[in-house]
Amino acid sequence: MERNTLVIGGAGFIGSFLCKELLKVSDKVIALDNLLRGKKENVKDLVSNPKFSLIIGDANDVTNLKKIIKDNKINYIFHLAANSDIQASAMNPSIEFECTAKTTWSILYAMRECGVKNLFFASTSAVYGELKGENFSEESLLEPVSYYGSAKAASEAFIRSYSYMNDFNALIFRFPNVIGPNLTHGVFFDFISRLKENPTELVVLGDGSQSKPYMHVSDLVRGILMLIWDNKGVNTYNIGVEHDTPVRKIAEMVVREMNLPNCKIKYGSGKIGWKGDVPHFSYKLDKIYSTGWKASMDSDEASLETIKEALGKK
Amino acid sequence: MERNTLVIGGAGFIGSFLCKELLKVSDKVIALDNLLRGKKENVKDLVSNPKFSLIIGDANDVTNLKKIIKDNKINYIFHLAANSDIQASAMNPSIEFECTAKTTWSILYAMRECGVKNLFFASTSAVYGELKGENFSEESLLEPVSYYGSAKAASEAFIRSYSYMNDFNALIFRFPNVIGPNLTHGVFFDFISRLKENPTELVVLGDGSQSKPYMHVSDLVRGILMLIWDNKGVNTYNIGVEHDTPVRKIAEMVVREMNLPNCKIKYGSGKIGWKGDVPHFSYKLDKIYSTGWKASMDSDEASLETIKEALGKK
Repeated sequence: MERNTLVIGGAGFIGSFLCKELLKVSDKVIALDNLLRGKKENVKDLVSNPKFSLIIGDANDVTNLKKIIKDNKINYIFHLAANSDIQASAMNPSIEFECTAKTTWSILYAMRECGVKNLFFASTSAVYGELKGENFSEESLLEPVSYYGSAKAASEAFIRSYSYMNDFNALIFRFPNVIGPNLTHGVFFDFISRLKENPTELVVLGDGSQSKPYMHVSDLVRGILMLIWDNKGVNTYNIGVEHDTPVRKIAEMVVREMNLPNCKIKYGSGKIGWKGDVPHFSYKLDKIYSTGWKASMDSDEASLETIKEALGKK
Repeated sequence: MERNTLVIGGAGFIGSFLCKELLKVSDKVIALDNLLRGKKENVKDLVSNPKFSLIIGDANDVTNLKKIIKDNKINYIFHLAANSDIQASAMNPSIEFECTAKTTWSILYAMRECGVKNLFFASTSAVYGELKGENFSEESLLEPVSYYGSAKAASEAFIRSYSYMNDFNALIFRFPNVIGPNLTHGVFFDFISRLKENPTELVVLGDGSQSKPYMHVSDLVRGILMLIWDNKGVNTYNIGVEHDTPVRKIAEMVVREMNLPNCKIKYGSGKIGWKGDVPHFSYKLDKIYSTGWKASMDSDEASLETIKEALGKK
């Protein structure tokens, strides 16, 4: 069977990396992106490939989405369209409704209308809420605390009902912070940008002990492409890396890689950078490991790789 | 503290019953209803009460919603606005997005903007999905199979994040089929309407063995008013009755109460009336029982009461 793929959010950080890899294993790759966070630049190396097209548009325009699906005989949809900046939506929650929850509904609706049966959905560890404890498994309750987490949890619920009602196959990955080339925000992007402006001082929110697992985008995309083609029914996996990297370590790595021995790193106090953020979390990876997938880089390795990529050292 | 209450969906079947009871224990009761399913007739006995107003409008009009909240110094919101016809949305899923999921988001957004802290939300047993087994507790995973169930599950996720981010208190009841006066659809409404048109024959979808627990609206509303005033944080309860009533028994009760001894009841075959419907389910009520609440009518008693109410025998 031909693999005609549509990557929604295809000019974004993860989406553009996925498009690049999909081009190696499928017959057609259409990237749809509204360029709210995505950038044409992210796919500039792909546009010369005759199997690739970038379409500027919003997935919430269902009429256009259906036209794209039909014109290209799409049979696999990779849904990575979402607001990905939790801090931004903490200030303005409606971003999450429009860009995350509604987008999922629009895509499912178009799939139902057009008879597309296969979906990948980019979910998040934030669906667990992460206040009550650690070691979340795929069987744990979803109790999101951020608007972002709740819009992703809502998306998962929508996917379940559409999949049951229309015999869709859906692969859902819940992932932690993903890093790599072309990041648009987050601690790595932020530290490097600020140090480029002022190389003498780096102010860190919180006391620097906040620690999260960071996964490299290449490991994530390898997982998607390993499981999507034979996926049947709705299957949800935690995907990630085993150890965490504290903010303090990231700050030190960035300063070292930028060769700024005289830069002062100033820490604040307290454990949480902003409400809805989580100081520490971990979750079980047994289910994804049972498929044979494992990250090739741990969190510290992925962090260093990302810093080097951002500084043009790779 | 004054209790200025807003019942969204207040002219609906459950909402109008709630308004009537709220008038006994609060200072002001505003019913907001878009009259898609609600009816002015349902609150016709309340409009003479100076503490009561019916406002025709849609909760998705956030500007208007905020004005109503401010003008009336609302401090308790009862959110019962939703599509309540699962069969209708199985045909047209977008009803659930607009009328169920989006409505919840709009209400939460307005609460955040206006500083309202207390919410009751009408959820459903359908959030569990009910295909995998029985005896769902509040700690069970949500795996909705109907669009209706997924929009309610999404609403619960939205409520969790807004409550955490804004210190809302939210009381969430997951309930089964609720019956009583002023029903607008469902098996009781349907059988009685059809027998009024043709008293000689009643055709039943499925083999009649399909069995569900039916709770009387008076028991539900008593539970809401028992727990809402002192509710702190997000608290979710299954609420319901212990035994089920099979469709066959309902058909027989209706025919008997309508005095139609010569009416023939014709059954179909198969267990499920339509996709997304569930032949049988049950869930645990221990948590709500621990508050002291218990239904005064079991499922069969509630069924008979409802039939008599519909026939004007009460």
